[in-house]
Amino acid sequence: MMANIIAFGEVMMRMEVADNRLLSQGQSLHYSFSGTGVNVAAAMVNFGHQGYLATRLPRQPLGQAAFAFMQKLGIQHQFIKMGGSELGMYFLEKGYGRRPSRVTYTERKNSSFNTAIFSEAYLNELAECADVLHLCGITLAMGESIRQQLMRLTHKVKQKGGLICFDCNFRPSLWSEEDGEAKRYYEEMFHLADIVMMNEKDALLTLQYETAAHDRRQQLEELIPQVAECYDIPVIAGTHRTVHVDNTHSLQGFLYKESSFSYAKTPPFAVLDRIGSGDAYTSGILHGELSRQSPQEEVQFAVTACMLACTIQGDTPLSTEDDIVSAINQYENDLQR
Amino acid sequence: MMANIIAFGEVMMRMEVADNRLLSQGQSLHYSFSGTGVNVAAAMVNFGHQGYLATRLPRQPLGQAAFAFMQKLGIQHQFIKMGGSELGMYFLEKGYGRRPSRVTYTERKNSSFNTAIFSEAYLNELAECADVLHLCGITLAMGESIRQQLMRLTHKVKQKGGLICFDCNFRPSLWSEEDGEAKRYYEEMFHLADIVMMNEKDALLTLQYETAAHDRRQQLEELIPQVAECYDIPVIAGTHRTVHVDNTHSLQGFLYKESSFSYAKTPPFAVLDRIGSGDAYTSGILHGELSRQSPQEEVQFAVTACMLACTIQGDTPLSTEDDIVSAINQYENDLQR
Amino acid sequence: MMANIIAFGEVMMRMEVADNRLLSQGQSLHYSFSGTGVNVAAAMVNFGHQGYLATRLPRQPLGQAAFAFMQKLGIQHQFIKMGGSELGMYFLEKGYGRRPSRVTYTERKNSSFNTAIFSEAYLNELAECADVLHLCGITLAMGESIRQQLMRLTHKVKQKGGLICFDCNFRPSLWSEEDGEAKRYYEEMFHLADIVMMNEKDALLTLQYETAAHDRRQQLEELIPQVAECYDIPVIAGTHRTVHVDNTHSLQGFLYKESSFSYAKTPPFAVLDRIGSGDAYTSGILHGELSRQSPQEEVQFAVTACMLACTIQGDTPLSTEDDIVSAINQYENDLQR
Amino acid sequence: MMANIIAFGEVMMRMEVADNRLLSQGQSLHYSFSGTGVNVAAAMVNFGHQGYLATRLPRQPLGQAAFAFMQKLGIQHQFIKMGGSELGMYFLEKGYGRRPSRVTYTERKNSSFNTAIFSEAYLNELAECADVLHLCGITLAMGESIRQQLMRLTHKVKQKGGLICFDCNFRPSLWSEEDGEAKRYYEEMFHLADIVMMNEKDALLTLQYETAAHDRRQQLEELIPQVAECYDIPVIAGTHRTVHVDNTHSLQGFLYKESSFSYAKTPPFAVLDRIGSGDAYTSGILHGELSRQSPQEEVQFAVTACMLACTIQGDTPLSTEDDIVSAINQYENDLQR
Amino acid sequence: MMANIIAFGEVMMRMEVADNRLLSQGQSLHYSFSGTGVNVAAAMVNFGHQGYLATRLPRQPLGQAAFAFMQKLGIQHQFIKMGGSELGMYFLEKGYGRRPSRVTYTERKNSSFNTAIFSEAYLNELAECADVLHLCGITLAMGESIRQQLMRLTHKVKQKGGLICFDCNFRPSLWSEEDGEAKRYYEEMFHLADIVMMNEKDALLTLQYETAAHDRRQQLEELIPQVAECYDIPVIAGTHRTVHVDNTHSLQGFLYKESSFSYAKTPPFAVLDRIGSGDAYTSGILHGELSRQSPQEEVQFAVTACMLACTIQGDTPLSTEDDIVSAINQYENDLQR
Amino acid sequence: MMANIIAFGEVMMRMEVADNRLLSQGQSLHYSFSGTGVNVAAAMVNFGHQGYLATRLPRQPLGQAAFAFMQKLGIQHQFIKMGGSELGMYFLEKGYGRRPSRVTYTERKNSSFNTAIFSEAYLNELAECADVLHLCGITLAMGESIRQQLMRLTHKVKQKGGLICFDCNFRPSLWSEEDGEAKRYYEEMFHLADIVMMNEKDALLTLQYETAAHDRRQQLEELIPQVAECYDIPVIAGTHRTVHVDNTHSLQGFLYKESSFSYAKTPPFAVLDRIGSGDAYTSGILHGELSRQSPQEEVQFAVTACMLACTIQGDTPLSTEDDIVSAINQYENDLQR
Repeated sequence: MMANIIAFGEVMMRMEVADNRLLSQGQSLHYSFSGTGVNVAAAMVNFGHQGYLATRLPRQPLGQAAFAFMQKLGIQHQFIKMGGSELGMYFLEKGYGRRPSRVTYTERKNSSFNTAIFSEAYLNELAECADVLHLCGITLAMGESIRQQLMRLTHKVKQKGGLICFDCNFRPSLWSEEDGEAKRYYEEMFHLADIVMMNEKDALLTLQYETAAHDRRQQLEELIPQVAECYDIPVIAGTHRTVHVDNTHSLQGFLYKESSFSYAKTPPFAVLDRIGSGDAYTSGILHGELSRQSPQEEVQFAVTACMLACTIQGDTPLSTEDDIVSAINQYENDLQR
Repeated sequence: MMANIIAFGEVMMRMEVADNRLLSQGQSLHYSFSGTGVNVAAAMVNFGHQGYLATRLPRQPLGQAAFAFMQKLGIQHQFIKMGGSELGMYFLEKGYGRRPSRVTYTERKNSSFNTAIFSEAYLNELAECADVLHLCGITLAMGESIRQQLMRLTHKVKQKGGLICFDCNFRPSLWSEEDGEAKRYYEEMFHLADIVMMNEKDALLTLQYETAAHDRRQQLEELIPQVAECYDIPVIAGTHRTVHVDNTHSLQGFLYKESSFSYAKTPPFAVLDRIGSGDAYTSGILHGELSRQSPQEEVQFAVTACMLACTIQGDTPLSTEDDIVSAINQYENDLQR
Repeated sequence: MMANIIAFGEVMMRMEVADNRLLSQGQSLHYSFSGTGVNVAAAMVNFGHQGYLATRLPRQPLGQAAFAFMQKLGIQHQFIKMGGSELGMYFLEKGYGRRPSRVTYTERKNSSFNTAIFSEAYLNELAECADVLHLCGITLAMGESIRQQLMRLTHKVKQKGGLICFDCNFRPSLWSEEDGEAKRYYEEMFHLADIVMMNEKDALLTLQYETAAHDRRQQLEELIPQVAECYDIPVIAGTHRTVHVDNTHSLQGFLYKESSFSYAKTPPFAVLDRIGSGDAYTSGILHGELSRQSPQEEVQFAVTACMLACTIQGDTPLSTEDDIVSAINQYENDLQR
Repeated sequence: MMANIIAFGEVMMRMEVADNRLLSQGQSLHYSFSGTGVNVAAAMVNFGHQGYLATRLPRQPLGQAAFAFMQKLGIQHQFIKMGGSELGMYFLEKGYGRRPSRVTYTERKNSSFNTAIFSEAYLNELAECADVLHLCGITLAMGESIRQQLMRLTHKVKQKGGLICFDCNFRPSLWSEEDGEAKRYYEEMFHLADIVMMNEKDALLTLQYETAAHDRRQQLEELIPQVAECYDIPVIAGTHRTVHVDNTHSLQGFLYKESSFSYAKTPPFAVLDRIGSGDAYTSGILHGELSRQSPQEEVQFAVTACMLACTIQGDTPLSTEDDIVSAINQYENDLQR
Repeated sequence: MMANIIAFGEVMMRMEVADNRLLSQGQSLHYSFSGTGVNVAAAMVNFGHQGYLATRLPRQPLGQAAFAFMQKLGIQHQFIKMGGSELGMYFLEKGYGRRPSRVTYTERKNSSFNTAIFSEAYLNELAECADVLHLCGITLAMGESIRQQLMRLTHKVKQKGGLICFDCNFRPSLWSEEDGEAKRYYEEMFHLADIVMMNEKDALLTLQYETAAHDRRQQLEELIPQVAECYDIPVIAGTHRTVHVDNTHSLQGFLYKESSFSYAKTPPFAVLDRIGSGDAYTSGILHGELSRQSPQEEVQFAVTACMLACTIQGDTPLSTEDDIVSAINQYENDLQR
Repeated sequence: MMANIIAFGEVMMRMEVADNRLLSQGQSLHYSFSGTGVNVAAAMVNFGHQGYLATRLPRQPLGQAAFAFMQKLGIQHQFIKMGGSELGMYFLEKGYGRRPSRVTYTERKNSSFNTAIFSEAYLNELAECADVLHLCGITLAMGESIRQQLMRLTHKVKQKGGLICFDCNFRPSLWSEEDGEAKRYYEEMFHLADIVMMNEKDALLTLQYETAAHDRRQQLEELIPQVAECYDIPVIAGTHRTVHVDNTHSLQGFLYKESSFSYAKTPPFAVLDRIGSGDAYTSGILHGELSRQSPQEEVQFAVTACMLACTIQGDTPLSTEDDIVSAINQYENDLQR
């Protein structure tokens, strides 16, 4: 079943210093264009759906290059508006082993997307088209104007019968100190959402739940059902990542649905580029839901999609369903442990 | 005679798409850090002076990389403050032959430099140190706060007996429509300046002079003496650039001083990177003034510095006095015409 | 007026040795994907039309990369079929000054496109959609099967009222010795075509016309009207290229329409990448016809599009209508000669 | 003892997408030239022998670049013929961790080598020169004409007293479904060969042996002696590779000779480029045989050669005897486990 | 407390073959400038001190590039003299996994530094300025003239009350066979030094101590106190490195001070560039001494500085105090083992 | 007629800063290996001869990479000895337009070649093999030991009937002030040489001839016949280069033989890499002599070889006889002037 997924969010220009250098050491940057919405829309295209991006890009060479990049990813671009003057950007100094990556953002307040006023007609068109609307906490945090438009859009899609997929993506630095503010908006989204991407940390830090448990698995199993019930959310999913001493990672994915947890785990794996891999997980869950996989299959698929996204250059997941299935088969059968 | 030259202005991160590609074609950028003040300070260092930069850079990896770059250029950095959050940036898609270069700026309003409030003590230190203060029209255009600080600094330096060198660098896009505004500030600077870099276009467009002459040389010879007299400016200098059909350029430099014009001309030359070459001309004039060259030597030196700057990658002039002298000798003797 | 342009032809992988090296000297290649049809379709997109490509690509990583590249260029891809096993390729050792470029093709007989059997339904869809069908002599030369499909398609489009634009693109190496063969097929196309891209050489070498004139302008003015009349072709257009001793080029474009010639000339210009610039000329003529420019404007526009295409990396023209108009204004006003 | 080793086989152009990218992500390729025969001949040169390549390359820039590359590797080139039109090629998208590498071949049927008709005189010269003739299953699979020439050559070398070294290298995709075909030709080669590179999988899949054992070591020890006896093969050697969860590999090499097995094992090792490392193993065995090492030394040397080949860019092994010996000493003494 | 650290030593040009290739495989080199003294001075700058380099560089483009590089690192350059004609160089073929790195030096006898005659006034200025003087065994080994100057300088600094930090850095290849020679000079330095960087191997090989112990920890604990006592050295510090089978390393650092050992250990870590990381350890110890850290903090800090230096491209450590502290916190809290 | 050409001389490692940068600006170098002898030997290989190099290379990675490079060029390497410790090197900062290239050499006194003592047997073998011996003034200047060996070799070749080709290549910086020294050795070579590459400047500066003529053509025509007669040299050849204002060059070649001058001229041409192009001229003359071209053909061929060498990356000429002939035809027929 091919569905229309609309991701509403910002496009960022990613500039990575070549050869693992620091900005003060290098002189060349590799650039590409991404963003949570971009990553989800592109991943869904690779799974055989129509992935749309609803955003605004500046009508200058940076915006045009971003637009061409969206086309290259196979993203449907009829909902990409041109206007405004700035493109969001970030610089990446990729870490190595125990040296962590450093990300430096430019000011996003004035970005084309964040300053956009989308017309009612435009929002209606989106709602008309969307089988699924994907949103994330970064967009929610950007500013009052874009937040209200996001809310209006969410209500419209809901009304038309589309699914709402919300990725918490909580970034404390984007919210004012009085974090009650974040909580209020997150709660509003949670009441509307059909699928929420989160884990126990979001319950603790954003929603201000409390728990006596110390182990993250116990915290998860205690808090997620409370959240699901409180906000009436049919599907909640997320991951726990473990970093091993040899610098490989492993992932445990969970899916909470119909009052029960399903789990799947990857073997340890080497990481080429971690950024955006969470969006691969989201896309795996969305694809699982849309193609009516069993919960176990779905979480297995999603966590493997996330793993493979860590082995690909750049933020945007590029694996197909076949790639993921054969990775699952491969590590279930072949490797010596 | 070695002098202390202080350039007050913004540092920009320059990002150039590799291999003459457009932003939509490429995936790598070469980056460096420059700015009118950077270029002049560095050029003066190469001529044997102390070149200082007075600016502010953000305390994050971009700002630190810019700081390291200033050090590499040999610029004195005790007047570089760290603070604020944004670094000015521009993207360069280098043209080729008849395809012009395209430059895309990011928003500069919020840059570290443009939002800086420099203390009175700091401005006094600058004034104490400066034999020459270099300023440019871009800084003048940036915003009310930085403009007032610039003016205050200029008065202080003037008082201490330092020379004021002002480069018109008029960018219409940086000024509001009612260009009387620009005129007012330019006039204020002209009254203070000892050396002004400009040509007849600045007289016509910014100062709103008029002339019946059509030829640019005639316009120059009519208007520059009027400007010099009106604002009591000891030295005015500038260039005329000619682009030839074979894509070589040639430059004619002029120097107006003690009521007479001196001229010097380069032979045609191939251009590798034109940006910032005007700052090489300024530096040549400054060095000529400081080292008491004859007007003819000075303009010859400056125009050749400008030519050589067009043959070097990046914005910043890197030629030494020896390089320039031997280029002059070379084209005066050897080439067949 | 926005029109649907369908280009029917092969996609080639272009691999260029980096840094002007020979294949035996280098170790890296820049790759991109192009072809006459690709270039025309992409150029028409940049002029505001819908550019479609009708072709077939192999369902493997090379074909998928080619497909993504077509998307990036903004080409409509619903008529791109996936299948077959080989992608056409060529290697480019870019020349320098008096060292000519060398192009090495791989065998194209087995390419996905050349071995495709397009269904009748597919050809009908193309005919239904096409306001203009673009074809070229290279496709005509590839083999009997693809030639017959091309002919069938041409008839269908003609019937539906679409314009046929045929670019002679005669490559002797692709035809058997008995060149009567080429002549026969070219004549068939000429009878169907509304717009033919050619010059006097095609009349002499392919159609075997004769003339006593020696000067190429005289030959052109004698032979093109004969061709137009003989095959009843409304529009014939083409170029003469002159290479100057300083390695700049200049172009003279002509347009023969309603029994009269219009000409336009570029100033000399430096060349970065010449391949594919003829397709920019074709696109300029097509855009001129579709937007009802005067013959003089049209040929001026086309020849300038061709010139700018020579200043851009890669085969595919990327200039917009604005770029071209401002290049025309620029060389009409500014340059010193 | 320095021997003449002639490898009879195809040269391939290898094109690897830079920086671990997919073909659809990148825009540059690193190229080099290799092939099983190339790798063995070059490795033998590094061990102090004369390594000859018997092949055919097209007389165009790709073939000339391949020829220069063979020279650079120190391969004797008097048996490299020039002619035909196509060079075999493959594209490599190097995997990362759990993302497997993807290799895309171009059509090899028309390659210069595969369409070559070598003269009787040429084959005689080869036979005259060869102390060892190296052949592989890929060449055997390529087509009837080249297979027959290979067989004729093998008989001639055998007659002159040269050793025949045959590497099974079974690639199912190169053989028709009815795999009895492959079996027939493999058996013919096995009867002639003095040294066969294979493991139990070749016995099972190609020669259609059967076994009740499940463990690969047991299968090996059961089947290899049967093969050796059945076809009267003095030396059989091969490897088992283990991939560990931390993405390191380890290798176990075996050598079956005079009715007994010798084994050697590497410690786990990180892999930079795995392709062609099997050819390093073959070369190690050949060198061991030619220099009369003990079986234990020989298999140790070969498996370490194979390990080091995995740490070098490109397909072709470049280690010297000293490099290998010091790697053996190093891991026998120093590392903490 | 900010101190003046003067490192006396040679600047080397480091040229590394790109992409892990061998010199015979590649065609491009990355270059930078380093040296033990450079690394220590730069690391101390990053810790907030004034790092000076006392050396000589040739007055030609290589020397000027080295000078600019020193400036970029923030090193104080007033004690860098220009003169002589050669710059020391080394070529690096970076290893991979079990393939060791290869370093090829050019002749250093004639280098600018090694042939320098520094004036008495210059040495006095150094002594006047230095809170700490850093020297290493490589300089000691270079030749009679430079050695005598080094000794004279050491005595002067000592007299003025500066600390002497001596890094053994014993390179057998730089000393004549009769190693009593090395011993003699090392002993002279040890009598003067306040801080010595060494481990038990230096005691055994250079100073010719003997021990019955086999374990390196036991050897260390037996010999280092003997050395400290014999030469009256307040602080001795060094490291033991362990290479694991998965190619990660771990480090144990020790500090011997006031008759007792302090130890600290890193977790295993991946290594990007190992060269120069010992200088990071030295700098950590120096900073610990200067900022009066406890012995345990100091050795922990130093060993983590060393670990992080292995994750940064190039020889020169670039971590700040904050980077190091947060790495310590990170591996003490977060990682799963 | 295929001949054996032996070039006796040094191999240099050439390191060029990427992208036209200065050493102080860049961070990557392209490297290759060349030298006058290398260039001539390789060029002769491309013309169908056997080109040998007689030299010595160090037995370390740099020397081995140089050796592999010689093989790649197709140079016969049986006379390349391994030994010594240093490889000659130079760094190239390529100029642009009016910014001249800068070349920085490392000390060559200690190079493997310059410190070699070739055995009498070796020199005899060379003499036995050589149809032509090529030498140049750089080798003559290197030092007493190598000069005497060169002289001994020259006498031996002469005795065996080989031709002596001597390229003056006078580099004042390599000779002591008292230039009578250079004169003496040059005269010795001139008496032995059959073909001398020089122009009037060598007569004036090295041989200390005098003339009243000012025009270089007149000087040439006056002095070269005197030189030919005085030293009894059958063939003298050389070039005059003209640099035009648009930065193109043109070349005039001359050949003096049997008491008469032949001349040939290239059209102006763009220059990619000028270094080593004189060696292409030498090779053209040698090939002309060996293949008994007419003087006019020979000089035309040589000067065009020289022109094409300026359009190829690196020092070493790579054009074939066909490339040169078609360049001649091309500029005689096609270009508009």
